[in-house]
Amino acid sequence: MIKITLPDGSIREYASGVTGAEIAESISPRLAKEVLSITVNSEIYDLSRSIETDAHIKLHKFDDDEGKHAFWHTSAHILAEAIESLFPGTKFGIGPAIENGFYYDIELPEGRALSENDFASINKKMLELCQQDNLITRKDITKADALKYFESKGDNYKTELISELEDGTITLYTQGNFTDLCRGPHLPSTGHIKAIQVLSLAGAYWRGDESRKQLTRVYGISFPKQKMLEEYLVMLEEAKKRDHRKIGKELELFHFSPKVGMGLALWLPQGTALRDRLESWLTGELNKRGYEMVKTPHIGNVELYKTSGHFEKYGKDSFQPIQTPAEGEAFMLKPMNCPHHVEIFKSKQYSYRDLPYRMAEFGTVYRYEQHGELHGLTRVRSFTQDDAHIFCRPDQVKEEFKKIIELIQYVFKSLGFTDYRSQISLRDPDDNSKYIGTDENWAKAEQAIQEASEEMGLKPVIETGEAAFYGPKLDFMVKDALGRMWQLGTIQVDYNLPERFNLEYKGTDNQMHQPIMLHRTIFGSMERFVAVLIEHTAGKFPLWLTPQQVVLLPISEKYNDYAKKVLDLLKNYDIRGQIDDRNEKIGRKIRDNELKRIPYLLVLGEKEAETETLSVRKQGQGDLGAMSIEEFAAVINNEIKENFNN
Amino acid sequence: MIKITLPDGSIREYASGVTGAEIAESISPRLAKEVLSITVNSEIYDLSRSIETDAHIKLHKFDDDEGKHAFWHTSAHILAEAIESLFPGTKFGIGPAIENGFYYDIELPEGRALSENDFASINKKMLELCQQDNLITRKDITKADALKYFESKGDNYKTELISELEDGTITLYTQGNFTDLCRGPHLPSTGHIKAIQVLSLAGAYWRGDESRKQLTRVYGISFPKQKMLEEYLVMLEEAKKRDHRKIGKELELFHFSPKVGMGLALWLPQGTALRDRLESWLTGELNKRGYEMVKTPHIGNVELYKTSGHFEKYGKDSFQPIQTPAEGEAFMLKPMNCPHHVEIFKSKQYSYRDLPYRMAEFGTVYRYEQHGELHGLTRVRSFTQDDAHIFCRPDQVKEEFKKIIELIQYVFKSLGFTDYRSQISLRDPDDNSKYIGTDENWAKAEQAIQEASEEMGLKPVIETGEAAFYGPKLDFMVKDALGRMWQLGTIQVDYNLPERFNLEYKGTDNQMHQPIMLHRTIFGSMERFVAVLIEHTAGKFPLWLTPQQVVLLPISEKYNDYAKKVLDLLKNYDIRGQIDDRNEKIGRKIRDNELKRIPYLLVLGEKEAETETLSVRKQGQGDLGAMSIEEFAAVINNEIKENFNN
Repeated sequence: MIKITLPDGSIREYASGVTGAEIAESISPRLAKEVLSITVNSEIYDLSRSIETDAHIKLHKFDDDEGKHAFWHTSAHILAEAIESLFPGTKFGIGPAIENGFYYDIELPEGRALSENDFASINKKMLELCQQDNLITRKDITKADALKYFESKGDNYKTELISELEDGTITLYTQGNFTDLCRGPHLPSTGHIKAIQVLSLAGAYWRGDESRKQLTRVYGISFPKQKMLEEYLVMLEEAKKRDHRKIGKELELFHFSPKVGMGLALWLPQGTALRDRLESWLTGELNKRGYEMVKTPHIGNVELYKTSGHFEKYGKDSFQPIQTPAEGEAFMLKPMNCPHHVEIFKSKQYSYRDLPYRMAEFGTVYRYEQHGELHGLTRVRSFTQDDAHIFCRPDQVKEEFKKIIELIQYVFKSLGFTDYRSQISLRDPDDNSKYIGTDENWAKAEQAIQEASEEMGLKPVIETGEAAFYGPKLDFMVKDALGRMWQLGTIQVDYNLPERFNLEYKGTDNQMHQPIMLHRTIFGSMERFVAVLIEHTAGKFPLWLTPQQVVLLPISEKYNDYAKKVLDLLKNYDIRGQIDDRNEKIGRKIRDNELKRIPYLLVLGEKEAETETLSVRKQGQGDLGAMSIEEFAAVINNEIKENFNN
Repeated sequence: MIKITLPDGSIREYASGVTGAEIAESISPRLAKEVLSITVNSEIYDLSRSIETDAHIKLHKFDDDEGKHAFWHTSAHILAEAIESLFPGTKFGIGPAIENGFYYDIELPEGRALSENDFASINKKMLELCQQDNLITRKDITKADALKYFESKGDNYKTELISELEDGTITLYTQGNFTDLCRGPHLPSTGHIKAIQVLSLAGAYWRGDESRKQLTRVYGISFPKQKMLEEYLVMLEEAKKRDHRKIGKELELFHFSPKVGMGLALWLPQGTALRDRLESWLTGELNKRGYEMVKTPHIGNVELYKTSGHFEKYGKDSFQPIQTPAEGEAFMLKPMNCPHHVEIFKSKQYSYRDLPYRMAEFGTVYRYEQHGELHGLTRVRSFTQDDAHIFCRPDQVKEEFKKIIELIQYVFKSLGFTDYRSQISLRDPDDNSKYIGTDENWAKAEQAIQEASEEMGLKPVIETGEAAFYGPKLDFMVKDALGRMWQLGTIQVDYNLPERFNLEYKGTDNQMHQPIMLHRTIFGSMERFVAVLIEHTAGKFPLWLTPQQVVLLPISEKYNDYAKKVLDLLKNYDIRGQIDDRNEKIGRKIRDNELKRIPYLLVLGEKEAETETLSVRKQGQGDLGAMSIEEFAAVINNEIKENFNN
């Protein structure tokens, strides 16, 4: 008999060789129906795989990341099986589960190409294979036999992969008529998949190498319930409409020029106005909270990054060092602002009374991403962090965490992100050796983070063993209007840089002590945050933030002067906007400006000019009727006030 | 006989072989006394050199740059002669005239070093040599003879220089007992120099090469009148006190860390506040004038700079390209913002009605400077331009120039630079071939600049032939409180980039036309401007701009609460400051904050707390007596209003 420990700590005894499926069945038949994979100690197993020794286990359903992973990984195999049956002779590359669904990279037979017209037949075939509820079986195989099998199929991509594997570690998975090289884990059978669909096609170089063959990447999605698929497709449709790249273009917020370089955003006037307003608003909040703003250059001597450790970390996969005419002098694009801020800290001497020193910068950093990884503003090569570093005493960590949490909560609320989660990453208490910093400081900091989170009303998930080697951290994820989670702000304790740069302050004991450094961002990066904000609001930004609050629409040229007068008067109320004095029909002007997500349109004609009023149209609500300028200003300013009071 | 044309166009006839000195004498004996060198056609001659053919000439006095140059160049030779006579065996490198005075790089005999203690004897000797009024003579010499002469003296630096010269182009100059390798020109005799003095010593690598020997650079100054020297030394003393590097440290405005890299300023909180206030004030003025702000990255693909021409211009003497993991993909740190702005312009299509497009950015650029060339904030490797590009039609150039001149005048006035000069650089009408753009556009633009300048009340110096190959320009130089001129803003017409990037707009004729691009800065660079502002104001910034307008000084701890209350109330009046709650005597607090150039100090004790008043001390004026908070706010706000009304 072996001892199986469940996540709640309870222990059950089973015969050696018991499977995950059997364990689930022994707990509840309902659970057995829903369970998709099992973590055995730290490895994920198929449900049908035998467990031979005592183990800690966790059963995974579709709700868990691990469950989804097995589900979508099996779905990728189904996709391949369907394609092989529809297009015999297709060669297969890799087919992993991804964050949302799965894909398979394939090479169709000579002269054949996939198009959207093929989706229906593939979908039909996949569903058929699922409904057959074929068993999925795992088999160890020697390298020689594996090579022989795929050579005989003509699958040269698979044989290339196998040739790099170590003999004795190779497994195949088979369902129905399809066998794939795979590590697993997979579902017990294909019948768990009730809804499955191809989503899109893309080109993908074999092994991401532009000098190799370009394969066809087929993306798909699947669910345990048909209704989930339907909801997902609706969400996807909505997400497409809200795609920040699409809206960014429509609203002329930013632009990418291949000539300047991919992943390097050019911020157009409207986007710049939005970003500047976000930055100046946050700067005001920082000032109120005792932060001091600094400015640092975008490069630093490589010696700086050797001391900080970034030189090693950002190696050959990164932007390479910048040589200069001087022998031995080279610079790096800064991947992080911290070393520069540390050097500012070191420009003075401190006593315990001078701490905390809260140093903030909207600092633009540069990190190389593969061309294929770039995506709009969310994966870029240059981004501006709303960065801050707090240099403090160990006894100030908790208070500083509370202050930062308060700020993050305030910012999220002001921007309409009411649903967010938090996660605390602690060190692995069983393996102190891989962390730097004293046990005492770690214990203090971990306690401080947890107490601060609790006192500020957070309900963080606690992940033990997930801390970086240099300190514990607290992360924030916001949920957008489509229910998607986005990682934004983070607060990170750091014992490493103070050590590497030998930072110090004079304590009450007149001795020198090492301060603790906190890294924190709220937005994460301005680029990513603006992208999230666009997708969350579908481009309908909060009124206080939006670049143009109003557009004035004179019905004809005759009323341009009145429009100018109104715009000037509105400026006195801090209301910003512009006049659409194009020689177009009023209906066209309204439509065009609604497309630009202008919150308020003011129609100005004879009646309005005579009575010094405005005909007000509100985004999404239509005509609000006539108002005086004072009344309209009150409407705007109340809406803004409400935004901050909610 | 030859015809000599004077600058006023009048023509005089002289015998061939006439000298500059003789021409001056023939015009007026008084002029002959003051004249120092002569431009013959485009070459500068010694006054004693013969003129053999018809020529345009200009006589130079000490007021002219050319006159100063000869004066200080001769002074460098006097310095060398004095040193050779005092320290026989000294070897000589180069000894040029510079912007303010002259220097000579020397190698003293083995075991001997110069110190400030030697200055008196060198000064005495130099003055003696001047008073001898020795003639200065020029002699052509063969390369072989020149080498022989300096070899015999053991002057290996001179022989190295000669070895690189072409035979037939080598001249020597001799005065008294000293002969130097030199192209000239020089004064006719040493007696013109009435006051001469060594100023300082520095180390300088031979030929600026750190792998070669370090020589001693001896700096000096000289004048035609003793009184001018005395005034200069007073100014120098005052300039030392106002050195922006010194004040920048005292006021904690910026910091340089060798670890981050020389020439890369780290802006400390007070400096950042100053810069941010300057930037946001200027941004407000730009918005009022129809500019649109953009943001662009600090790197660009090398292809961008190949198209723009900057790749060639910023070659091996510059920051080298940044390689990436992708084959053939490389980036450059941007030396200029223009190509990025051009790519923004190209992101849309334009009709004649859409122009002008005024695009502005505080854009940080990177240009490599030799280590030895770096100087505080005035010569750096990273600087932020208050850059703008105006894309306009040819018929809009004049109006745009007027608008920019208005803005520059407004900015200079608001910052207390009431004395400034301007210069228009036009093309050489005799050599159209070296300029790009049509004759018609050049003529139009040159006329537009001149008319705009005149209509805006400028009295620009007009320099023909000084235009860049891509367009004419207008430069601004401000005079600071010590009378020193600083080059700041510039407006430059550009036909080149629109051509290279194929920019276009649709004209009234429905055809595509090329817009004209104007480059303009007002401050030039934020770094340089802040340096100038510091030296101009000695760190006493205008009240509206200074980071801390007031510091509150509670007499003892007991009044800290009252100080907090006052500070909060002052915030309602947009007055910013802080409390000095250190446990120090009030006298000490006053002294420390006066050193920090705080405009107003508010002393708070029992009497003030009881009567809700402030005891106000003003920078440079001392005690202003007691005021209510309202009265004090009025004082501050009136001072700010006056700043902008003057």
